[in-house]
Amino acid sequence: MISIDLNADLGEGFGPWRLTDDERLLSVVTSANVACGFHAGDAVTMRRVCELAVERGVRIGAQVSYRDLAGFGRRAMDVPPAELAAEVAYQIGALEVFARAAGARVAYVKPHGALYNRVVHDEEQAAAVVDGVLLAGGALPVLGLPGSRLLSVAGKAGLPVVTEAFADRAYTEQGTLVPRGQEGAVVSDPEAVVERSVSLVRSGTVVSRTGTTIEVRARSLCLHGDTPGAVELARRVRRRLEESGIRVEAFV
Amino acid sequence: MISIDLNADLGEGFGPWRLTDDERLLSVVTSANVACGFHAGDAVTMRRVCELAVERGVRIGAQVSYRDLAGFGRRAMDVPPAELAAEVAYQIGALEVFARAAGARVAYVKPHGALYNRVVHDEEQAAAVVDGVLLAGGALPVLGLPGSRLLSVAGKAGLPVVTEAFADRAYTEQGTLVPRGQEGAVVSDPEAVVERSVSLVRSGTVVSRTGTTIEVRARSLCLHGDTPGAVELARRVRRRLEESGIRVEAFV
Amino acid sequence: MISIDLNADLGEGFGPWRLTDDERLLSVVTSANVACGFHAGDAVTMRRVCELAVERGVRIGAQVSYRDLAGFGRRAMDVPPAELAAEVAYQIGALEVFARAAGARVAYVKPHGALYNRVVHDEEQAAAVVDGVLLAGGALPVLGLPGSRLLSVAGKAGLPVVTEAFADRAYTEQGTLVPRGQEGAVVSDPEAVVERSVSLVRSGTVVSRTGTTIEVRARSLCLHGDTPGAVELARRVRRRLEESGIRVEAFV
Amino acid sequence: MISIDLNADLGEGFGPWRLTDDERLLSVVTSANVACGFHAGDAVTMRRVCELAVERGVRIGAQVSYRDLAGFGRRAMDVPPAELAAEVAYQIGALEVFARAAGARVAYVKPHGALYNRVVHDEEQAAAVVDGVLLAGGALPVLGLPGSRLLSVAGKAGLPVVTEAFADRAYTEQGTLVPRGQEGAVVSDPEAVVERSVSLVRSGTVVSRTGTTIEVRARSLCLHGDTPGAVELARRVRRRLEESGIRVEAFV
Repeated sequence: MISIDLNADLGEGFGPWRLTDDERLLSVVTSANVACGFHAGDAVTMRRVCELAVERGVRIGAQVSYRDLAGFGRRAMDVPPAELAAEVAYQIGALEVFARAAGARVAYVKPHGALYNRVVHDEEQAAAVVDGVLLAGGALPVLGLPGSRLLSVAGKAGLPVVTEAFADRAYTEQGTLVPRGQEGAVVSDPEAVVERSVSLVRSGTVVSRTGTTIEVRARSLCLHGDTPGAVELARRVRRRLEESGIRVEAFV
Repeated sequence: MISIDLNADLGEGFGPWRLTDDERLLSVVTSANVACGFHAGDAVTMRRVCELAVERGVRIGAQVSYRDLAGFGRRAMDVPPAELAAEVAYQIGALEVFARAAGARVAYVKPHGALYNRVVHDEEQAAAVVDGVLLAGGALPVLGLPGSRLLSVAGKAGLPVVTEAFADRAYTEQGTLVPRGQEGAVVSDPEAVVERSVSLVRSGTVVSRTGTTIEVRARSLCLHGDTPGAVELARRVRRRLEESGIRVEAFV
Repeated sequence: MISIDLNADLGEGFGPWRLTDDERLLSVVTSANVACGFHAGDAVTMRRVCELAVERGVRIGAQVSYRDLAGFGRRAMDVPPAELAAEVAYQIGALEVFARAAGARVAYVKPHGALYNRVVHDEEQAAAVVDGVLLAGGALPVLGLPGSRLLSVAGKAGLPVVTEAFADRAYTEQGTLVPRGQEGAVVSDPEAVVERSVSLVRSGTVVSRTGTTIEVRARSLCLHGDTPGAVELARRVRRRLEESGIRVEAFV
Repeated sequence: MISIDLNADLGEGFGPWRLTDDERLLSVVTSANVACGFHAGDAVTMRRVCELAVERGVRIGAQVSYRDLAGFGRRAMDVPPAELAAEVAYQIGALEVFARAAGARVAYVKPHGALYNRVVHDEEQAAAVVDGVLLAGGALPVLGLPGSRLLSVAGKAGLPVVTEAFADRAYTEQGTLVPRGQEGAVVSDPEAVVERSVSLVRSGTVVSRTGTTIEVRARSLCLHGDTPGAVELARRVRRRLEESGIRVEAFV
């Protein structure tokens, strides 16, 4: 039986502000990428999300970011490797406290936003993220884009790597994501997203924007929770996957 | 043989800025109160201080604070208990990563600045700090002022409590510190500080500002490292203690 | 003809986060208390709110706060007067740039959250806020609670003072606000809020929580925009005031 | 008579931390690039530096930066132009309050650190900085590197442009600075710095690292104040310039 993990970004509020519908998303996903305070996420929110995740059997992952609250971690930064590694470890450690208190552990690491995009290509920052994960100990799995520098560096360092795909994003013929901002980068029709989810998981393929069928092997699907209708769409994706005989379960 | 712990605040830089002479202080003290990023302390500094501490056999403690970089944690804040508890846990967790990576563990917790002063009297915030320590797990010892609400709440919660004294601060007849800002609050003559250190440890007493001898039982002496001559004075205190037949060693 | 100003907090987002429905509120109020970056408010938001305010003829006020993003300025802080004064001036100056660029000026100053509450009673911080306003130049009017230390200190310093009232808050017999957290502190029935608004403005009185009629003279009514239905309620208040023959207009 | 401006970065502390010897530097330079809170600089420091600058007849400039306290503004960031422009204006406005309160005005703008380096080549960010300066009003002069995109964009926008040179940095044959990190990038011999200062100002030339004489026209010399001996060197540079018959005076 085929199985797939569903991951989403959670706990992306700060102080009085909220972004993600943590409570409802946690009843859909199997892996929660919890913001650790650098792009979003305060201590109270981290604690609450960890408690809810454990209640629902959802895995807790550290969603690590550049230190950039004002920019929500969406601005690429030339952070020296030693700083980046230490900052990644700091974030994992902070989250670990709340995961443990809730009766679990941080189970994986996923970079956020601009850092996520940067480590697709940037060997130095990819290595710094991996150093940070190693510093934090426990040989945590790293979640990222197939073919990214991050996953190759992590793999060489002996860390488990987990690939993910995006059913709501267009792919190029080379199997990379069409950059946001380009026309058609985001698949907005909900039914199309649902169908792509099933075909991605079933066949390990997706139709690229030029109409060719390309291979996209992923152990996890990334769902979004920060737009109107997002949770409802996530629910539909999960239901359709299950109706299609696919088991939805965490990768660890 | 009598023994005493020497603790000092360390790692109190941030980004390009430095305050404490970490390297030299670590060759004097037995317990390092490491700043965890809320009043001072960035990830790179925390990592380095932990590595140096372990090299020199110095215990690592989490110096937890209000979230107040601009005020260096010196401004009392009415932080709701649930937030304060979570923020304390967050800081301990972040430091734990670097302590572990260096081959040690966070061995105790000491509040910083305005939080330190607040939890002498404020039952609610004292309880919140203790909740944060419990949340972080491991039943860490709490370092604080004899007679403080913090230590009584911590003790009731089953946490080990460690009392500390200040050889460079004047005491009232009631055994509390003369508040900074009042005349004579700080003992500035180095030789007087050295002598008070020895008598504090030896006899468990100190002469109050009114000339009476009062009891001040302490398992640790707090030394300061952020003023000119501070490290030299700390060295002299340590040497004199040792010459007086007192063993200088960490309390855990 | 009686006239009243309607003020509300605006621009209280930060980075990716939003709190207030700035666009719709700006079509109701006559004075916009714009967050200046210390409890909320980033430069892009400040700029946009100023532009919208000028388009709609709404006065721009600096909503100054403690430096406390994580706590949204709701946590009382013991900030030394010299720091507080300089921080108040900093915020006014930052907002002034966007007010000017939009073709207006910062027209008044109103403290936010915990600072607002503190300067009702705290003479020292009240004086620091006034020093900050004086430092910023232009002898800006100060908006606050009748009977507050802030307004008395501001008045003595030669600054115009503007009193405000809250139609959605219960008053004690002494004319002070029933503290949030106490039962009945907030008037939640919309129709009651509307009626209290009209009677407050018309008669300068309000019925206290014990049933006595007390005097509450206010040149401005504070409306809220951060709860569901808030904008709709604000609209109803304005409409009813106008239907009652009251002119709604800025106080400057 | 030839004249030259001497500029230096000032007020680069934050909270309890200090970096620059503001007081002594202000008796050497003619233009003070004052940190505005984004990479360094708190409100109290900004106020004090402005007061000292006015006392000594030193011009006040806004040293604008990316929002990056932890990295001291030394990490390049992909800030969207609209954000960068608004953030530049915010910083200028905040400083303007203190300049005015001290009896002066912000007289020019100079980007700091990574932003300074970025706008040498990056047209988009250069345009954003210029937009920020225009937004702040008053057509302030922009201080930067000869040949930089910043100065060309600023000039086209009608802003006065002021070129600067570095006597303690090596130049390539093309007249650009040898990047820090490359061998010989920094001229460390004090006497060499002093001599280069005089020849730079006198002849508008400097000897490049390959030994050729190249033209470097500059209206201002940038001195550094954040290293040991820096203030003493700055003094020597100024004295030698004056002894060489060069008038040292602000460019505006």
